[in-house]
Amino acid sequence: MSLDYQIFDLGDVQLQRGATLRDCKLAYKTFGTLSPKKDNVIVYPTWYSGQHYDNEWLIGEGMALDPSKYFIIIPNMLGNGLSSSPSNNPEPYNGPKFPLVTACDNVRAQHKLVTEKFGIEHIRLVTGWSMGALQTFHWGALYPDMMDLIAPFCGSAKCSRHNYVFLEGVKAALTADAAWKEGWYTDKPQRGLRAAARVYAGWGFSQTFYRQKLDLERMGYSSLEDFLVGFWEGFFLPKDPNNLLTMLWTWQNGDISDNELYNGDFQAALAAIKAKAYVMPGQTDLYFPVDDSEFEVANMPNASLIPVPSVWGHFAGGPGTNPDDVKFLDDKLKELLAS
Amino acid sequence: MSLDYQIFDLGDVQLQRGATLRDCKLAYKTFGTLSPKKDNVIVYPTWYSGQHYDNEWLIGEGMALDPSKYFIIIPNMLGNGLSSSPSNNPEPYNGPKFPLVTACDNVRAQHKLVTEKFGIEHIRLVTGWSMGALQTFHWGALYPDMMDLIAPFCGSAKCSRHNYVFLEGVKAALTADAAWKEGWYTDKPQRGLRAAARVYAGWGFSQTFYRQKLDLERMGYSSLEDFLVGFWEGFFLPKDPNNLLTMLWTWQNGDISDNELYNGDFQAALAAIKAKAYVMPGQTDLYFPVDDSEFEVANMPNASLIPVPSVWGHFAGGPGTNPDDVKFLDDKLKELLAS
Repeated sequence: MSLDYQIFDLGDVQLQRGATLRDCKLAYKTFGTLSPKKDNVIVYPTWYSGQHYDNEWLIGEGMALDPSKYFIIIPNMLGNGLSSSPSNNPEPYNGPKFPLVTACDNVRAQHKLVTEKFGIEHIRLVTGWSMGALQTFHWGALYPDMMDLIAPFCGSAKCSRHNYVFLEGVKAALTADAAWKEGWYTDKPQRGLRAAARVYAGWGFSQTFYRQKLDLERMGYSSLEDFLVGFWEGFFLPKDPNNLLTMLWTWQNGDISDNELYNGDFQAALAAIKAKAYVMPGQTDLYFPVDDSEFEVANMPNASLIPVPSVWGHFAGGPGTNPDDVKFLDDKLKELLAS
Repeated sequence: MSLDYQIFDLGDVQLQRGATLRDCKLAYKTFGTLSPKKDNVIVYPTWYSGQHYDNEWLIGEGMALDPSKYFIIIPNMLGNGLSSSPSNNPEPYNGPKFPLVTACDNVRAQHKLVTEKFGIEHIRLVTGWSMGALQTFHWGALYPDMMDLIAPFCGSAKCSRHNYVFLEGVKAALTADAAWKEGWYTDKPQRGLRAAARVYAGWGFSQTFYRQKLDLERMGYSSLEDFLVGFWEGFFLPKDPNNLLTMLWTWQNGDISDNELYNGDFQAALAAIKAKAYVMPGQTDLYFPVDDSEFEVANMPNASLIPVPSVWGHFAGGPGTNPDDVKFLDDKLKELLAS
């Protein structure tokens, strides 16, 4: 079988919360060619439950992320089923015993990939959607001298309390299913996965999206129930529950200042981000509201707030769902890369 | 045992969806004295899972809903555990076999109470929060010549598609628990009720509420987890799951035009509401957004849109949670009653 991605072996990784992830593996895919000067690098982390191929909608000839110009690296998040995850890690740290992984752990692992595997010392741009944006902010705060530009879209530098609560609902729905067996499931907890999907459905798109029936008119579903089953349940059912819970914990505990560099001083961590930044929240995103991005931008030295004028809620940011939003994001990324 | 409420026996009630609710009972409580002319009546229906005592925060000497001036009737919604409900209806229509009840069914039953029990022909004001607002709109559309004023707050005349989806998440979380047994539970489905509570938690209050930590600063909880367990899980655990699901269905299927008067023509039903109306959505309500109220008001002949300027989300409307919002609502009700 030929895979469309590579594995970087990190060896034993000491995680922020104390555990060691032994023989840790980072799955990644690259696009384009690294220039001789190694000055054409874009890092583009994945989002909650997404894998590298779920990021490809923003890459293409003639687009901002053009593989004929840039060397684009998509590192898969730990826990996403391709990098080290509950579903693929060997005993004894498999399944529900997989250790807690922070966004900081993820980005430090990605930094090793970038520097040790490719010998890259300078990055042109880091960008990402949702949890990809969380990792983008982490890149900016953990390695402030390493990149020119960052463009986090529909995400935040720290999980807000409201966002945490929304995720508690998703987690509670998934784990209410007795078939989940506290993570020791032998059969797929269908009912819990479907419940988590239905909980997510109200958050993923905006009130206006549903009011305008864009699930039917633009996405082609035949009814609201068809959208809930066909899109949402269909999205969650193939995912491994422990993987989902690992990434959910990573998300809930995301905070660029939760490390020894900033010791919880969130404003100091934001202030340390030197990169020129386009922070692009979705105008109608229900869990990454513009207010939170405003606070971030106000505390970053070189950032612009550029809301995506969309009624697609969180999905204004991806994964390529609405062509108008893709064009907006791509145009802004072009503008940023040209600056 | 002395109860603080009365029961009105409706006999056999033919429901909109075809079933007959035999020996249907409406629990209600009244405040104040009916004037000899019967011209001082306020009807104030209950909200999702609320019972009449949960409405009392808006009633009091010196308040708009002053029992020394008005005769205030609080009818309990069918399914709320006091009026006929899955939890108290006799076999064979008990538990999960309890029939589907619409908001229209509820308001028609309330109309019988008002006219047959009390001989009231004219109502001064109908008002209510959330599903109480849904019933208020129904009063206005089903009996347009019967009242002077309506004041629905933090609710809608028709369940929006997004609101429907949010409720699907609550339902899916509750019913993912195997202990629910498709409604034939013998033990309380603790885990499902707690999951439903956690799902609800993200919707009930706004992003800004959580950002400002009003759960801690204003409501006195010691941590976010304490708020989730102490307030939210504590709120859901005492409720009967089948009752919750009956009222949830009522909510999801709420629509003032879904009856033989309007045959699904929502704008016609809105246009038929003659009462002077103060429609008061919460400025930051996540499931009854101001946009939906705007549409309603634009289609009502005698309505004003008066958003409650609050960051308390849906709880701007009750139940007496934030004193500033209570004052705002009470002032507006006084203004309306004085007009």
